[in-house]
Amino acid sequence: MAQDTTQALKALDSFAKRHIGPTRTGIEEMLQAIGVESLDELIAQAVPSSILHPEPLDIGPALTEPETLAYLRTVAAKNKVMTSLIGQGYYGTLVPGVIQRNILENPAWYTAYTPYQPEISQGRLEALINFQTMVCDLTGLDIANASLLDEATAAAEAMAMAQRGSKSKKTAFFVDKNCHPQTIAVMQTRSKPFGWTLVIGDPELDLEPTEVFGAILQYPGTGGQIVDYRKVIAALHAAGAVAVMAADPLALTLLTSPGELGADMAIGSTQRFGVPMGYGGPHAAFLATRDDFKRSLPGRLVGVSIDARGNQAYRLALQTREQHIRREKATSNICTAQVLLAVMAGMYAVYHGPEGLKGIAAQVHGVTAKLAAGLASLGVAVETTAFFDTLTIKTGARTADIVAAALAAGMNVRQYPSGDKIGISLDETTTPAIVEAIWALFGAAPKYADVVATEALPANLKRTSKFLTHPVFNQYHSETEMLRYMRRLADRDLALDRAMIPLGSCTMKLNATTEMIPVTWPEFGNLHPFAPADQAAGYAELAAALEKQLCAITGYDAFSFQPNSGAQGEYAGLLAINAYHESRGEGHRKICLIPASAHGTNPASAQMASMEVVGVKCDERGNVDVEDLREKAKHYADILAAVMITYPSTHGVFEERVREICEIVHECGGQVYLDGANLNAQVGVVYPGKFGADVSHLNLHKTFCIPHGGGGPGVGPIGVRAHLAPYLPGHPQTSPNSPVGPVSAAPIGSASILVISWAYILLMGGEGLTLATQTAILSANYIAKRLEGHYPTLYKNEHGRVAHECILDTRPLKASFGVSVDDLAKRLIDYGFHAPTMSFPVAGTLMVEPTESESKAEIDRFCDAMIAMRDEIRQIESGRWTADESPLHFAPHTIPDLVDEVWDRVYTRAEGCYPANTRRMDKYWAPVNRIDNAYGDRNLFCSCPPTAEYCEVISE
Amino acid sequence: MAQDTTQALKALDSFAKRHIGPTRTGIEEMLQAIGVESLDELIAQAVPSSILHPEPLDIGPALTEPETLAYLRTVAAKNKVMTSLIGQGYYGTLVPGVIQRNILENPAWYTAYTPYQPEISQGRLEALINFQTMVCDLTGLDIANASLLDEATAAAEAMAMAQRGSKSKKTAFFVDKNCHPQTIAVMQTRSKPFGWTLVIGDPELDLEPTEVFGAILQYPGTGGQIVDYRKVIAALHAAGAVAVMAADPLALTLLTSPGELGADMAIGSTQRFGVPMGYGGPHAAFLATRDDFKRSLPGRLVGVSIDARGNQAYRLALQTREQHIRREKATSNICTAQVLLAVMAGMYAVYHGPEGLKGIAAQVHGVTAKLAAGLASLGVAVETTAFFDTLTIKTGARTADIVAAALAAGMNVRQYPSGDKIGISLDETTTPAIVEAIWALFGAAPKYADVVATEALPANLKRTSKFLTHPVFNQYHSETEMLRYMRRLADRDLALDRAMIPLGSCTMKLNATTEMIPVTWPEFGNLHPFAPADQAAGYAELAAALEKQLCAITGYDAFSFQPNSGAQGEYAGLLAINAYHESRGEGHRKICLIPASAHGTNPASAQMASMEVVGVKCDERGNVDVEDLREKAKHYADILAAVMITYPSTHGVFEERVREICEIVHECGGQVYLDGANLNAQVGVVYPGKFGADVSHLNLHKTFCIPHGGGGPGVGPIGVRAHLAPYLPGHPQTSPNSPVGPVSAAPIGSASILVISWAYILLMGGEGLTLATQTAILSANYIAKRLEGHYPTLYKNEHGRVAHECILDTRPLKASFGVSVDDLAKRLIDYGFHAPTMSFPVAGTLMVEPTESESKAEIDRFCDAMIAMRDEIRQIESGRWTADESPLHFAPHTIPDLVDEVWDRVYTRAEGCYPANTRRMDKYWAPVNRIDNAYGDRNLFCSCPPTAEYCEVISE
Repeated sequence: MAQDTTQALKALDSFAKRHIGPTRTGIEEMLQAIGVESLDELIAQAVPSSILHPEPLDIGPALTEPETLAYLRTVAAKNKVMTSLIGQGYYGTLVPGVIQRNILENPAWYTAYTPYQPEISQGRLEALINFQTMVCDLTGLDIANASLLDEATAAAEAMAMAQRGSKSKKTAFFVDKNCHPQTIAVMQTRSKPFGWTLVIGDPELDLEPTEVFGAILQYPGTGGQIVDYRKVIAALHAAGAVAVMAADPLALTLLTSPGELGADMAIGSTQRFGVPMGYGGPHAAFLATRDDFKRSLPGRLVGVSIDARGNQAYRLALQTREQHIRREKATSNICTAQVLLAVMAGMYAVYHGPEGLKGIAAQVHGVTAKLAAGLASLGVAVETTAFFDTLTIKTGARTADIVAAALAAGMNVRQYPSGDKIGISLDETTTPAIVEAIWALFGAAPKYADVVATEALPANLKRTSKFLTHPVFNQYHSETEMLRYMRRLADRDLALDRAMIPLGSCTMKLNATTEMIPVTWPEFGNLHPFAPADQAAGYAELAAALEKQLCAITGYDAFSFQPNSGAQGEYAGLLAINAYHESRGEGHRKICLIPASAHGTNPASAQMASMEVVGVKCDERGNVDVEDLREKAKHYADILAAVMITYPSTHGVFEERVREICEIVHECGGQVYLDGANLNAQVGVVYPGKFGADVSHLNLHKTFCIPHGGGGPGVGPIGVRAHLAPYLPGHPQTSPNSPVGPVSAAPIGSASILVISWAYILLMGGEGLTLATQTAILSANYIAKRLEGHYPTLYKNEHGRVAHECILDTRPLKASFGVSVDDLAKRLIDYGFHAPTMSFPVAGTLMVEPTESESKAEIDRFCDAMIAMRDEIRQIESGRWTADESPLHFAPHTIPDLVDEVWDRVYTRAEGCYPANTRRMDKYWAPVNRIDNAYGDRNLFCSCPPTAEYCEVISE
Repeated sequence: MAQDTTQALKALDSFAKRHIGPTRTGIEEMLQAIGVESLDELIAQAVPSSILHPEPLDIGPALTEPETLAYLRTVAAKNKVMTSLIGQGYYGTLVPGVIQRNILENPAWYTAYTPYQPEISQGRLEALINFQTMVCDLTGLDIANASLLDEATAAAEAMAMAQRGSKSKKTAFFVDKNCHPQTIAVMQTRSKPFGWTLVIGDPELDLEPTEVFGAILQYPGTGGQIVDYRKVIAALHAAGAVAVMAADPLALTLLTSPGELGADMAIGSTQRFGVPMGYGGPHAAFLATRDDFKRSLPGRLVGVSIDARGNQAYRLALQTREQHIRREKATSNICTAQVLLAVMAGMYAVYHGPEGLKGIAAQVHGVTAKLAAGLASLGVAVETTAFFDTLTIKTGARTADIVAAALAAGMNVRQYPSGDKIGISLDETTTPAIVEAIWALFGAAPKYADVVATEALPANLKRTSKFLTHPVFNQYHSETEMLRYMRRLADRDLALDRAMIPLGSCTMKLNATTEMIPVTWPEFGNLHPFAPADQAAGYAELAAALEKQLCAITGYDAFSFQPNSGAQGEYAGLLAINAYHESRGEGHRKICLIPASAHGTNPASAQMASMEVVGVKCDERGNVDVEDLREKAKHYADILAAVMITYPSTHGVFEERVREICEIVHECGGQVYLDGANLNAQVGVVYPGKFGADVSHLNLHKTFCIPHGGGGPGVGPIGVRAHLAPYLPGHPQTSPNSPVGPVSAAPIGSASILVISWAYILLMGGEGLTLATQTAILSANYIAKRLEGHYPTLYKNEHGRVAHECILDTRPLKASFGVSVDDLAKRLIDYGFHAPTMSFPVAGTLMVEPTESESKAEIDRFCDAMIAMRDEIRQIESGRWTADESPLHFAPHTIPDLVDEVWDRVYTRAEGCYPANTRRMDKYWAPVNRIDNAYGDRNLFCSCPPTAEYCEVISE
């Protein structure tokens, strides 16, 4: 073995040994198998010399796991956890211990992928349908999606839906001035590129229904006031406009639901359903609507369908609505959801049940009513007359003193720009002692018990309708039952804690325990995003340090952590490009070149940023056709805004001419957006900020170890070169004068999980990160090599190398033998694996990405399975069975199949269930047979199904 | 419904709602089903009025979960975590995060029961066989048990084994003075009742091999010195005496193993293999021995056998060795092991592998050698010449100053009674900065990097033999592989997180998350048991508060938390009785009356406490035959020491005449030991300390929610009335002048898990605890009622009521139809349940204890299963099948059964696998078929089996 590999492998003496799956021996064996002497030799073959970086990644040495945790504890200690009374969309909440330990801290839940393969995702799909049912019930609407990124972006999505769904052809949208400020700000950002005017005002005074395509009304208002909007909604409808309500789900347990008030849509955040504030996120927002609008609902939607045995089964419904088919006319680029948080919020409702939630709401309202009564007795002027949990208090000239006194007493109140009032929001963590401490700010505090309060909910808005009547919300209220329910659901699913998930482009790598541990420390969890900056010094240090690391890793000059998904990052990056052009008087630059191979979110994001998408061809190798690009760039040179490329390409190859591509676009006045989805192939090897890119988003939930959470949270920070740095997203709370507005509700997005990525980088150090990249590339090339006689790799570079993933061309199997890529994906379940990425970026193919975290043993197990499947196809060739008789056709095989008395297949039960060399003792069994997607879309049903029919129809 | 039940149910407004399974409605329905109006009416029928306590349990109101955690955080903060250099058997260690999260904090592992039902315990059995293999490999001996309670009791067990196994007929045992002081002290306690003399001295100077039946030698010695004991061992053998070594498992990775030195046995603690010190426990000790002694090995032993399909499977081997058959001639009462901790230690070895462990040991030795070299350069006199990790330093007159300086620098060193030297032990957490800080105690510290050190292991004791060569220790070194391995094992097992475990006498109730959370706080985990008292103020507060609560609950006056299992508690209680009699000049009182129905540990403990056991009959109702008791008590009145009774009786009934029994024994000069195993039926209802008992042990792992951990840890504190309080166990470190010596290594035993019980009591409050008891009794009576037409309940009181459990008389089914209790137990697996307790206390019966934590739905599911099984037996009656053809005979049914091409049973596959009404979607499948115990005992094999043969033979 050559010297350089031995040198690189020294990183295996540190945490890298735990993170990187192959051992020294494994790496050596794989190098040998693909015919190179060293990792450096492989990298020289896989990566163009024109961009290869000669210097080692300099981010300091790796820390050990205990050193990392000790260091992070000191940083966490710099955050000061106070009693938050700020409200404004973020509230104290009690995370039930059983949910925290068994979901948020349980790899069975947090390492799962998005449930695109429904047969191995029945557990989280049920959890999400619980969430959807909860949202429908609380909002009184017909259908809800499986979560959105935050309340502010949910409002923007609703606005876009309203525009599509409205009968009015107006281009203005009315926004209740009592919406949360960050909601209004994000809607401003999002409306501008579409050319929509936002009218902000009092719905009862300022709204002209005939002048708008819709309106959003907040309920209760950000200041706490509850208003009856029945008439406003009726007027909107009369004018053909759409009524959206932003609502607090806890308040809805006591208040007449938006649906009952006539609203067409409702949005909001489920944060206070047992998800820590986390300095802004992640949390699950919701969007519910009437049936009429269901086909334009953005985001993921879980529905009920049937499987091949006719049993009920869940799967993602209406997937064709997704951005990847809307592309050039998209008004949404939603891809990531907030699955893990939606699951937690749904479980919070399952655990408390309708009576429990009502009890919590009544308690919150009770303490708020007490607070108001006590304030009245002290002669304090309270502006809010009808309220749930929030009071606006007129403090006039005493405001600064009262805020200071609150701080001194360990409490943060909401401050208003006007400086003459404060806001106080209470929540389920509020104790009588806190209420007394608030009173004490205003004078001699009465005793809590001595104050008599009356309910302050408007009589005409008291909820009378039932909700959460489904049994799932009414039978798991003891901890034992709850624990078992969550275990049952978890056991239905296949996540990284059981097997490799070789999803190309998704980078399903280790989410190490040490990286996850700090997430649930109270010092990271219990901070309000708008807490005073001096209480968040730990977060500031985290953000600064992570930015510095990411700059070193990417070669960029600055980062914004605000985008809370990759697609959000794309959007923010394109807004920065727009603003940059505008700043130079070139605001007319609107053409965005996008190669045919791009992620579907790319054109959608470009469209949302008011750019016009022009496609660029790819050559037969899958590379960008540079001549076509040059031609188009030159053609549009006067109005060229940007190119969006992915690197390594979505075809899994380091394109040779990437530097040239960047130069062409720059020469034509455009900016280079480099999609960072594939950064896991670059860290420590090449530096996008150095070879020509101007801006990238990174998927921290891919390259930097934030778990996929079953389909979210994602984090999509953007890195930019210095000239774009002024145009990173601003925020009304922290940088109100920024030229670009916010793209997310919270200033640094999903702040509480950034610590995962930081911990990862600290643990790996520069050498470890580089070795990880090299190993990821090695493993992908090893797979391509092992499978070459069975499944050709579609795209390689001129040296015959792939990057960190490989596209297996399975199209001939369909053409010759009738075996579809779906058959292969489902049959892999029988072998104990999650399928690779299907039909992206090339229809009918499988894209495999092993990542560096899979051991050689697991990779070999996967290759063995792929080869064994190919042998099964050879049996079609040899005439033993037809495609429709083959085990591929009937996959996945389930236990109910085995229970059938009659077995009329041409293969044995054992061949069906335990194909060659598969693990028997610890086999994962899909709980359902192959699911009929079309049936579910034809018979759309997206709430909890009646239980009697479910689970008991098997094999009868 | 009567008023009193409604009143009692108010507790359901608190945490009790989460802990208690049945809802208000469920309780009302069960009351109705058994024909009473209220809980009070039921209790009046079930419990003798003579002992029923009229006053409510007064331990204050319940706290909420957040209040409890907040309060416990303030208590934890009173413990001061310093750098421990004390050694003496307890060392700093790094718990791998992936093990902490996925074992110690994972209910799949910690809620499991002892693996008596091996078919549903294959995961933890494999984990334990890993532990055994690790111990055998490290010690160089043939066979090891699956853990013991602590190093000191392991030494005592080895001494007793040596006595049984020695050819010498001497009654003295030699103890190396370089054993840890607590080890010597426990051996003194244990040897005294047997009449064995302990000779303590230097093995090379003071040992006369012909005068002893054995000797124990510590390696390395408590002061750090490593001595070559080959000659001593040879001399012992020449004299027919047995050689035991106490060894440090980490040192053994570098040192010649005890087996290679000739030792017959080795004991020690695996604490430093990734188990926190926890102020003394729990940790897993080990005992390994040569093949010759294997049949007298105490404790549990996991072995390999085969199942009904001929596949390898694990199960507990040689169960007949257990104390329950030895009884009156026992030298051990071992029952509980330290399974959860043994699993952790074994996983630590799996994760690090042999090279990793050697690396850790080399690092520890390296820093120690550096320390020694630096001290030498400073002119400090170090006594230890050949060492692994510990130095004894002569500090003379400067001792107090150096100790104080160490404290000021945040370090605890070991102090010796002589006051002229200190001990320093290093471990895997020791950093160069710590070594420099130690040097600084003695003068101008050199730089760590500047000090040159040489290895200090004796050349003739360097290990050359291999260890941990089995693949299991060599393939799970990446976190991903480790995580998946632990998940696979967990998935094989059925624990409380999946189903009811209705084990009579075992009280498998909820182990709530909030109770578990503080266990892994560093302030509880990282304290050395001999840390200065002022650093352990939090523990002192915990122990005092828990003692106060338990006194209120039991009516006793004082408690000792030292016993770390129930049997240990029995032993400590009987020692207190002995000492009490001795103090009154009645040391001749040695008769212990024990009813026939007693737990097997009772007579074993009595025997170990030098008492002579006299049996007392039971009447046809299962109650103690009071006339027989009276007769025997009177007969032995002059020498009567005690009676040992269990209450409610092991027959599951509150005996009417318990007060009278106590009076009879007292009148005859005896003391009443009341076994607290069934305290879950008494809390808040009756008070043993008030109705006549003098002493009880409690099983905190039953009544007070410490999880069973798969068979340990247990905690067995004893409560006593005031006159016995002076005779609670002492400890050389904390109460050296106590009249009774220690029974465990650490002063308050398994200190770190006491917080679980404390949290439980705080969360429940007096009302909640009382309602829990009432509900447990209600649920047991409900089961007896629901099953009465199918399985008669063997024992009831005169009102037809059972206590908190019921014995189902299944003997007629064997007699009439050939269906054994084993068949029923295994068939219950097919229905998704762990079996009830089998054949205890009455052979051929099932004892069912639902506890208060099971919901009515789960109880009904269990009753439905029992009734359906009875219907299957009726098919034998009706002639549909014979017993040997029935599904009962073939149970448990496994997936491999279904895969068989030929199904030649008289029932269908579905009838076999999905019997009436069982859950299909989420069914638990036993990974193996019924296991052949006899085969395994005939072909005893107790290490990891060769992998090739394992798991792959199914259905071929």
